[in-house]
Amino acid sequence: MTIHDFRRGLEWALQDVFSTMFNQTAEVSASDDVSDVSGISAIVGFGGKVSGFLALHMSAEAACNIAQGLLGMEFECVDDTVCDAIGELVNMLAGGLKKNLSREEELFKLSIPSITNGQEYRTHAPSDAVKLTVGVTAGPTRFRARLVVEFK
Amino acid sequence: MTIHDFRRGLEWALQDVFSTMFNQTAEVSASDDVSDVSGISAIVGFGGKVSGFLALHMSAEAACNIAQGLLGMEFECVDDTVCDAIGELVNMLAGGLKKNLSREEELFKLSIPSITNGQEYRTHAPSDAVKLTVGVTAGPTRFRARLVVEFK
Repeated sequence: MTIHDFRRGLEWALQDVFSTMFNQTAEVSASDDVSDVSGISAIVGFGGKVSGFLALHMSAEAACNIAQGLLGMEFECVDDTVCDAIGELVNMLAGGLKKNLSREEELFKLSIPSITNGQEYRTHAPSDAVKLTVGVTAGPTRFRARLVVEFK
Repeated sequence: MTIHDFRRGLEWALQDVFSTMFNQTAEVSASDDVSDVSGISAIVGFGGKVSGFLALHMSAEAACNIAQGLLGMEFECVDDTVCDAIGELVNMLAGGLKKNLSREEELFKLSIPSITNGQEYRTHAPSDAVKLTVGVTAGPTRFRARLVVEFK
């Protein structure tokens, strides 16, 4: 199991979730690694044979678009409902990743999502973990997805 | 298993980690629930029979003090080494919590820590999860620890 397997699993989960929930395709592209962020970040941790976390980073506007797609209501700012919706999105993606990667054995368990939002903040992952960030475009919405994995 | 068991487990972990690593006692007090934050937040997720996450929220100064206590070096600002140190602290505390709560069976697996820092940001947990925040005083250092748990 390598970070490339995780990337393939994440691409599969993105296609699955965006086609099912939003009737959209999700295009994945290369991205710089994420550190300085503004907008909203939603993270689901995982632990087991492999441990790490999946983080989504997006603008307030992208978060409102996604919440609207999920809930069928319009949002003008990142309120608790939008935070819950982006938490649910990262949860579905992490669930899809787990399903794709766990063949004969369950590879890891998922935590519940934690969400951060603000005008300017930095994110940091343990220095010794493997990191991979991709850009995602789904319909009019763009965001970044970051995988941080510790292979034991 | 209730949030009170988690609180007792967290208090045990705080005593264990601060006496072992810092030769300090850790006093736990009531605290308002944390939402608006500045400084640094370090989060470890957990998943299994019970899922959730443990978050530490502290000022940059408190983070530098703790990193100094762990590494024996002085720090003037929150750099990558300080972030790693606070990630290691929340990792040790989540490990202690797991050890205290897992009697006959392993209750959950841990993710790796994710760290956020900045001047002004908000944190959010899923609306339907149980939340408990405590204040912690250890020597000259004060911070807040927040448990977010989903009982299935």
